[in-house]
Amino acid sequence: MPRVKATVAYDGTFFEGWQVQPGRRTVQREIEEALQKMHKGVHVPIHASGRTDSGVHAKGQVFHFDSPLQLPEHKWGKALETFLPKDIHVWHSVYADDDFHARFDAVEKEYRYCVLLRKERDVFRRNHAFYYPYPTDVEAVQRAAYYIKGEHDFSSFCASNTDVTEKTRTVYEAEARLEGDELWFTFRGSGFLYNMIRIAVGTLLEVGKGNRHPEEIKTIIESKERAAAGNTAPGHGLYLWRVNY
Amino acid sequence: MPRVKATVAYDGTFFEGWQVQPGRRTVQREIEEALQKMHKGVHVPIHASGRTDSGVHAKGQVFHFDSPLQLPEHKWGKALETFLPKDIHVWHSVYADDDFHARFDAVEKEYRYCVLLRKERDVFRRNHAFYYPYPTDVEAVQRAAYYIKGEHDFSSFCASNTDVTEKTRTVYEAEARLEGDELWFTFRGSGFLYNMIRIAVGTLLEVGKGNRHPEEIKTIIESKERAAAGNTAPGHGLYLWRVNY
Repeated sequence: MPRVKATVAYDGTFFEGWQVQPGRRTVQREIEEALQKMHKGVHVPIHASGRTDSGVHAKGQVFHFDSPLQLPEHKWGKALETFLPKDIHVWHSVYADDDFHARFDAVEKEYRYCVLLRKERDVFRRNHAFYYPYPTDVEAVQRAAYYIKGEHDFSSFCASNTDVTEKTRTVYEAEARLEGDELWFTFRGSGFLYNMIRIAVGTLLEVGKGNRHPEEIKTIIESKERAAAGNTAPGHGLYLWRVNY
Repeated sequence: MPRVKATVAYDGTFFEGWQVQPGRRTVQREIEEALQKMHKGVHVPIHASGRTDSGVHAKGQVFHFDSPLQLPEHKWGKALETFLPKDIHVWHSVYADDDFHARFDAVEKEYRYCVLLRKERDVFRRNHAFYYPYPTDVEAVQRAAYYIKGEHDFSSFCASNTDVTEKTRTVYEAEARLEGDELWFTFRGSGFLYNMIRIAVGTLLEVGKGNRHPEEIKTIIESKERAAAGNTAPGHGLYLWRVNY
């Protein structure tokens, strides 16, 4: 059966994450229900590059599935959208090799995180950026982000409730730049641990507040202790931006 | 009793407009309920500069009310926000003269309208801009907007279901400018008729599509016939931006 690879964006606000859970509105569930409608009631399981948590957004999540339907490859997006809610958008669809796997074949992932640096709340960005009304030394944040780059054991930046034992990852890019009142973080790497970006952002913001020195990131990583790092930044500032194969 | 003048922003997405209606979630209702909690169950009516329709947003709506509570004027915002939902934000509050009226004393209003000029849908802006995936001649739109400026009888740009008989208004500014993939319209005037901005935008977009000449706006206004103008653009692209007194 032909294998389809699709790229989707979603606004995570009204989803309880990606993965199907009984009684919950999740992205996977909406897409699988749409596929089921296209396949006359037959369940079509989909496989993503990875899960996203409740409230987390995606600009370029990737998933694959198998289907006997003979659609031209670029038509899958429009066909699926007929059955999808407005907070999911299929960007792109192609036929992939039979052994393509959205999760196992991913070689690089990019996440971005948006922090709203302003005193006043903004009702229009309340679900899409982390409102952070504190004086922030952006240059200190930028210097601190530098220490996250490279191959490290990231145990300090990993939620404690995880089964993963091998915690070494390679981060190719870890940067922060100010665009108006939005501080955008970009993280690109071979893969990321559970909550890794959100803990990294939470810790970098403490540097920006002046509670830690930029160089402390290095010792936090070396400690391999979750307790050494800062708070977990909220999910609604996080975007799965791109997955490369 | 002291009179308070407050400036609020709201995301209109989950409101059925400003005005209280039985069984509906409206902005006025949420604010009056918050005030009622602050006043030990006593209903405190509020008066806005004008209504907004379902889905329409505000950056700077103004309302007033009377209260016996002795709060420092700038504290009203924070106090109210304790009881308000996250899609309403009180920017500013001051004590006004006893005879100040948010509606009758308004001398100028500014509305903006955001059109999303791109082929792909954007899940993150779906409720805050009008998605318009058609080739658009922005310069033609800008030239056409020019004809809306000035003092005119705007019957052509007024929803037919209105009681208002005097339909002459003065528009001080009518402009369109492209910011990235967003086409932002700005309208500033002494006052506007029901649906006037949305009909103006709908008509200007038909100029952008090449279906009408920019100069046609002049003849549409002169006809004083609603049928001569274009469609009403949807409410979720519209923002009540500012009210001047």
